[in-house]
Amino acid sequence: MNDRHASVQVAEVARWDDECDVLVVGFGGAGACAAIEAARAGARTLVLERASGGGGTTALSTGVCYMGGGTRVQEACGFQDSVEDMIAFVRMAAGRGCEEARVRMFCEGSREHFAWLCALGVEFADAYEPEKTTHPFGEECLHFSGNETVHPFVEHAAPVPRGHKPKQAGEAGAYLMRLVNAAAEDSGARVRYDCIACRLVVDDRQAVVGVIARADGRETAVRAARGVVLCAGGFIMNDAMLAEHAPMLLQCNYKAGSPGDDGSGINIGLGGGGAAINMGEGLVLNAYYPPGSHAKGLLVDAAGRRFINEDAYIGRTTDAMLTKADGRAWLIVDTELWGKTQVPHKLVAVEDTFADLEAALEMPAGQLVSTIETFNRNAVRGLDPEHHKSSAYLRPLHSPPYAALDCTTTGSIYGALTLGGLATLPSTEVLDATGQVIPGLFAAGRNAAGVCREGRTYASGLSIADATFFGRVAGKAAAARDALG
Amino acid sequence: MNDRHASVQVAEVARWDDECDVLVVGFGGAGACAAIEAARAGARTLVLERASGGGGTTALSTGVCYMGGGTRVQEACGFQDSVEDMIAFVRMAAGRGCEEARVRMFCEGSREHFAWLCALGVEFADAYEPEKTTHPFGEECLHFSGNETVHPFVEHAAPVPRGHKPKQAGEAGAYLMRLVNAAAEDSGARVRYDCIACRLVVDDRQAVVGVIARADGRETAVRAARGVVLCAGGFIMNDAMLAEHAPMLLQCNYKAGSPGDDGSGINIGLGGGGAAINMGEGLVLNAYYPPGSHAKGLLVDAAGRRFINEDAYIGRTTDAMLTKADGRAWLIVDTELWGKTQVPHKLVAVEDTFADLEAALEMPAGQLVSTIETFNRNAVRGLDPEHHKSSAYLRPLHSPPYAALDCTTTGSIYGALTLGGLATLPSTEVLDATGQVIPGLFAAGRNAAGVCREGRTYASGLSIADATFFGRVAGKAAAARDALG
Repeated sequence: MNDRHASVQVAEVARWDDECDVLVVGFGGAGACAAIEAARAGARTLVLERASGGGGTTALSTGVCYMGGGTRVQEACGFQDSVEDMIAFVRMAAGRGCEEARVRMFCEGSREHFAWLCALGVEFADAYEPEKTTHPFGEECLHFSGNETVHPFVEHAAPVPRGHKPKQAGEAGAYLMRLVNAAAEDSGARVRYDCIACRLVVDDRQAVVGVIARADGRETAVRAARGVVLCAGGFIMNDAMLAEHAPMLLQCNYKAGSPGDDGSGINIGLGGGGAAINMGEGLVLNAYYPPGSHAKGLLVDAAGRRFINEDAYIGRTTDAMLTKADGRAWLIVDTELWGKTQVPHKLVAVEDTFADLEAALEMPAGQLVSTIETFNRNAVRGLDPEHHKSSAYLRPLHSPPYAALDCTTTGSIYGALTLGGLATLPSTEVLDATGQVIPGLFAAGRNAAGVCREGRTYASGLSIADATFFGRVAGKAAAARDALG
Repeated sequence: MNDRHASVQVAEVARWDDECDVLVVGFGGAGACAAIEAARAGARTLVLERASGGGGTTALSTGVCYMGGGTRVQEACGFQDSVEDMIAFVRMAAGRGCEEARVRMFCEGSREHFAWLCALGVEFADAYEPEKTTHPFGEECLHFSGNETVHPFVEHAAPVPRGHKPKQAGEAGAYLMRLVNAAAEDSGARVRYDCIACRLVVDDRQAVVGVIARADGRETAVRAARGVVLCAGGFIMNDAMLAEHAPMLLQCNYKAGSPGDDGSGINIGLGGGGAAINMGEGLVLNAYYPPGSHAKGLLVDAAGRRFINEDAYIGRTTDAMLTKADGRAWLIVDTELWGKTQVPHKLVAVEDTFADLEAALEMPAGQLVSTIETFNRNAVRGLDPEHHKSSAYLRPLHSPPYAALDCTTTGSIYGALTLGGLATLPSTEVLDATGQVIPGLFAAGRNAAGVCREGRTYASGLSIADATFFGRVAGKAAAARDALG
């Protein structure tokens, strides 16, 4: 927290330097979609972006968007999905803080949201990627991006793939955002780059009527006649905020964000009287797969024991690496399973026998050997009574040499992003600490607490889908507000 | 969140029904100590307590207070302690959100705080309880109340007992609070019972100048010329707030609080512009010991594996039961170790062999047998290479029948309390979302984020010590504020 983000009374604003109907803070996934909808609704729309170009954290991502309910791609690839099936899964993926109304709105609008992105020019190939991966590496689109097929989720909702990657080899976030940002500019929204929003301007009813920003080395006051939409990201780049709210994330050594994710958007909202919720939660990611064959390996702790089904989404397995294995985990593979990971993992031991591997890892005598032998014995029969790994990934380790990949917090890459933010209604209206709507203030993307509230239940694409979907909701809601005169 | 706690402008207050210099909300451990210090400093002090009597959650507790640095009891019992040794341990006990300045102030003032409580008439026996327990059951005072003697804490700070239970058989919280509450009334503080604080009254600078409360079925406006001290507890009784901030605690079936711990004090502060931090963290407690012999037993998960050193403080082991064992844990004992727990635990299996016990618990074949045999083999040699249980608790299980105590979330009592609250300086001044002090507003006890920020590192007595110590700080600070005229 710091005093740069306290709101100011409109009476203290000597003059307005700029003016619009809807002011959007941030030109990433949420902000660009908010700008498109606001401009299309006829509002004079202005985006303030602190960087010299648009895209935000979404442009640094894989671009995967979690959508379903029967998208064109799902149908073309032969998968049947429905709103109710999607709700059943997303409710679980939202975690223990799940807000039913928000999940329902998100799922009911998902099919239309897919079509809306397509209409912006974003291409999605009618192609399914069956390989277990964090995202397709080629131009394929549809994939299982979360825990749909794995224990315990698969027992509660019919598994349907809903990860949609735009048609682009490699990571598609920059491609996605080039198109979305361009659509925002085409829609008539103005964008000011290198302009950092600092504080809200409020009237005597505490309604939000503008923003104080900095550009060209001086303060500038921008009036927003209908509303301000905060889409400035989360706070993974702010260690002081992490210590105050999400100390667990401090042990992750790779911050999955852009420089703007310093919490300023959340703090601007707090400075205007907003409340923050779910601030302790985050997503942690150690990408020990792809290759998908690694999900057939065994994740073990310092005592040589397994602690999670290795075929779960890496948000879930990495949470387990931290909470169950205390950040000391290794992936055990044999020579046939081993492959190069995209995010490098060191091989810390390569041995011809399980016993030698156990000794090399300085694990308690007999434990790792027993873990692997027990796993192998059950895997032959297609069983994993301990952790219920899907039969597709049950295969005994039998091809020496055997290797251990370093998945410790000190020896490998732990990515992290935050899942807490401003409290909003599903309408994206920001709430104050007493549960009242702050007139004229909206928030979306990681600037707000969104659909997913827990990293351990997350699915890839939920954050971008949430940001772009509720960014649109925010843009429309702000544009529809009565002008203040 | 709800709108009952929004602050009101002083201009909206038609008339003051009552008046004081320092208004304290809540007459539990923090509030009573605040009232004593404020009244002794010459401030006209008024306490509003929603219940019909004082004591709050402290009165429902064991009364253990974490103090050290060389108290009379520590010296009489032959334990050498120092401020620096205490800091070294409390820093670890505070957890990852540790605030160095707060910990230092707490430890530097601890010896004097002990003497201050004694001067109120609170008796502490010069007697040490060596048995491993959550608190002494007799009149003994001093005991190891946290993780001082256990791995990994013992490797980083010389172990010294600092749990001080007042001289009273059984639980001493009610005894402690009778004396502290009486001292507050003797000090000249007025107390209004059955009076529930609802909102802060603020002036046009947003400084706090009073409180709107409800009593006798109507609203009453109370002016506080120097300051308002919020000591109204945490939010473990408020399921909606738990879902928003600390969803993990929802799975705990026993709320370790009084009815007033519904977050109203935190929400009153938020309504006045305060910020809340650490809201995701809490303490969870499954009291499988005493008897201390149970720490010689084995905590195992559904796969029959150990997951924590069983001699750790129950805040730490219970956190592990939830995060490492997914809420499915059992304590395995033999007939010599078994004893009656204070908080009842069901015996779910009693068998003459490890294999029969394993079968009765429906664990994977061979795993529990292997766990116990490995433990036994090492215990004979005084070793626990897997979890580093202290040698004092290493003893093979060898006296049939063997039993499993139910420690699952569905079959046993999981207590919980919250560790998040208003952001304050160590001076107890409440901070707003921009890091600025809110003039005239103070908070202590579980109404604020205090010394300890993580349940997994907690020690018994830290919450009461924090509440009473910083309650005093708050009372003095509020009394010392210039009257507003």
